[in-house]
Amino acid sequence: MQDDREREEGAELALKFNADGLVTAVATHAGTGDVLMLAHMDAEAFRLTATTQIAHFWSRSRRALWKKGETSGNVLRVRDMRIDCDQDAVWLIVDPAGPACHTGRSSCFYRRYDKGRLEHVE
Amino acid sequence: MQDDREREEGAELALKFNADGLVTAVATHAGTGDVLMLAHMDAEAFRLTATTQIAHFWSRSRRALWKKGETSGNVLRVRDMRIDCDQDAVWLIVDPAGPACHTGRSSCFYRRYDKGRLEHVE
Repeated sequence: MQDDREREEGAELALKFNADGLVTAVATHAGTGDVLMLAHMDAEAFRLTATTQIAHFWSRSRRALWKKGETSGNVLRVRDMRIDCDQDAVWLIVDPAGPACHTGRSSCFYRRYDKGRLEHVE
Repeated sequence: MQDDREREEGAELALKFNADGLVTAVATHAGTGDVLMLAHMDAEAFRLTATTQIAHFWSRSRRALWKKGETSGNVLRVRDMRIDCDQDAVWLIVDPAGPACHTGRSSCFYRRYDKGRLEHVE
């Protein structure tokens, strides 16, 4: 319990990785506040994000480190990194260089759920 | 691949649950845009959230359905639900009735990571 309290209140980074060695990351647009995408980070992706200020993730499908925008150029420049209470999630406040979604849309969350259906909002 | 495209572009809800039967959910404050919390939903939590417009999650620690704020009263009223491209994440835009974090803070993301340390911002 002491460890839990220190993890919640302390100034020390003690990320709580899941069984796959990952934490969840959410990126929001620094200007609009929109949620752009959800992804995952391993320790190395977190370290690279913090040191380069460019978002890096762990691609679960490719099982590889993933510098977001490496091929498209649509990187996410990180203004601010926040850690949640139990240190298993990271919030990145970013300036996107282009569309964040692989579909070409600014955000991956381009559909609203309403009355059992998905309605495109972008 | 056709299924993937339909899942990304279609109007039909086809949530892609992980091996534990969960999708990731992120809640942001409708007024400020702040990320309040990250959690998980099973199919029932999603259904209840959509029908009641009050956020429900699946508590992985308690292994139980979790109506956020059921004991504290700090429910999250859902204004809008968004689904991401591959339908494994849900974005809830909410009006919180009180602090979203169990520590009593408005958001679970009350610490900034900077230069290797965590700095409280709330």
